[in-house]
Amino acid sequence: MPRYALLVEYDGRPFAGWQRQADQPSVQGAIEAALARLEKRDHTIAAAGRTDAGVHARGQVAHCDMEKAWDPFRLSEALNFHLKPAPVAIRACAAVSDDWHARFSAHERRYLFRLLVRRAPATLEAGQVWRVMNPLSLEAMRAGAAHLIGQHDFTTFRSTMCQAASPVKTMDEIRIEQTDTGAGTEFRFHLRARSFLHNQVRSIVGTLERVGAGSWAPEDVRSALEARDRAACGPVCPPDGLYLMGVGYADDPFS
Amino acid sequence: MPRYALLVEYDGRPFAGWQRQADQPSVQGAIEAALARLEKRDHTIAAAGRTDAGVHARGQVAHCDMEKAWDPFRLSEALNFHLKPAPVAIRACAAVSDDWHARFSAHERRYLFRLLVRRAPATLEAGQVWRVMNPLSLEAMRAGAAHLIGQHDFTTFRSTMCQAASPVKTMDEIRIEQTDTGAGTEFRFHLRARSFLHNQVRSIVGTLERVGAGSWAPEDVRSALEARDRAACGPVCPPDGLYLMGVGYADDPFS
Repeated sequence: MPRYALLVEYDGRPFAGWQRQADQPSVQGAIEAALARLEKRDHTIAAAGRTDAGVHARGQVAHCDMEKAWDPFRLSEALNFHLKPAPVAIRACAAVSDDWHARFSAHERRYLFRLLVRRAPATLEAGQVWRVMNPLSLEAMRAGAAHLIGQHDFTTFRSTMCQAASPVKTMDEIRIEQTDTGAGTEFRFHLRARSFLHNQVRSIVGTLERVGAGSWAPEDVRSALEARDRAACGPVCPPDGLYLMGVGYADDPFS
Repeated sequence: MPRYALLVEYDGRPFAGWQRQADQPSVQGAIEAALARLEKRDHTIAAAGRTDAGVHARGQVAHCDMEKAWDPFRLSEALNFHLKPAPVAIRACAAVSDDWHARFSAHERRYLFRLLVRRAPATLEAGQVWRVMNPLSLEAMRAGAAHLIGQHDFTTFRSTMCQAASPVKTMDEIRIEQTDTGAGTEFRFHLRARSFLHNQVRSIVGTLERVGAGSWAPEDVRSALEARDRAACGPVCPPDGLYLMGVGYADDPFS
């Protein structure tokens, strides 16, 4: 069966997450339902990152197997037609080989977390940023983040529900930018790694927020990491500000 | 009665516009209902710009009259509490004199229009940008916009429903920026004038889009303007991408 890679963008707000569920809306379910309008049968697609409820994506990657050979552009157009009005869009589609796998062929995931510091509630960005009322120190958060770069046992920053075989991961980058938007101060956390543990980004950003607020010293991040103990983690932040931005492959199907 | 200026941000999607209406949700109605929770009586507030259905604001300005003297910060906090969960927030509040008027004291309005060029439907920005599928020339749109700067009779770019006494307005600025967002090309139109006619921004952007697409030559904008005829206008674009960004006062109450 011809296999296609899909570059997927979605607003996570109305969904219980990526993964198909019996009685709740999911991104996977929405795409599989659109595929069933094109080829009438059950479809099961695989994705690079199974995002949680409320988490967004600019560059999720999934793959599907089709019976007939589709022109990739026409496949993406047909899917976008049937996906409406759900806030899910296929940004690109490419034919890939049978052994290419959206999840197992991926060697890098890039996440963005958006944090908005201001007193007033978010309106235009409601559900798309984590709004925090206390001021944050960019320098302190950068110093705290530096302790997490490289290969570590991330047990502290991993959900107790995490199913990964090992808690050892290599964090390639945590880059933090600060911008004055005119209606608040936005902090953007860019995280990059081969793969992430369950809740790892939200555990890290929630902890760094405590560092930025001054409740934690930057060195406390190292102590928390070295404790290898979930109880040593700072508060896990909400999903609202989290975006799967992109997935890296040795041979990028969309380039 | 003590008068307070309010700096208001809102997501226009769920509203039939700024103006209070008998049986539809409005931004004015939402704020007046919140005021009634603080001082139990009918409230009527005035705003600098009566935005249409689906139009957003970062920096709308309104004023309210209260019976008791409120600390401005506490008034904004109390309003934000009662506005929840509507996507309306009071970003700032300031005491002003009795003769200060959000609409009549204003000497400048600044609007932003966001246009996203890409093939796939908008998801994260759905309802917050105008998505256009054809590529656009920034240079052509800038050349077209140049014909509109200065004082003109804007009858062509004015809704037939417009109630303004005169169609003559002075456009101080139309600045157009282009950015590659990684998930499309975004054009941002920044417009600035003492005041605008009804549908003026959407008429101008809709016309400039035709110029960018190559259907109109930049000089056609001048011919359309000189025609002083509504029928000479390009298509009026949707409200989704329009934001009232700020209002200028001789004595800015929030600075």
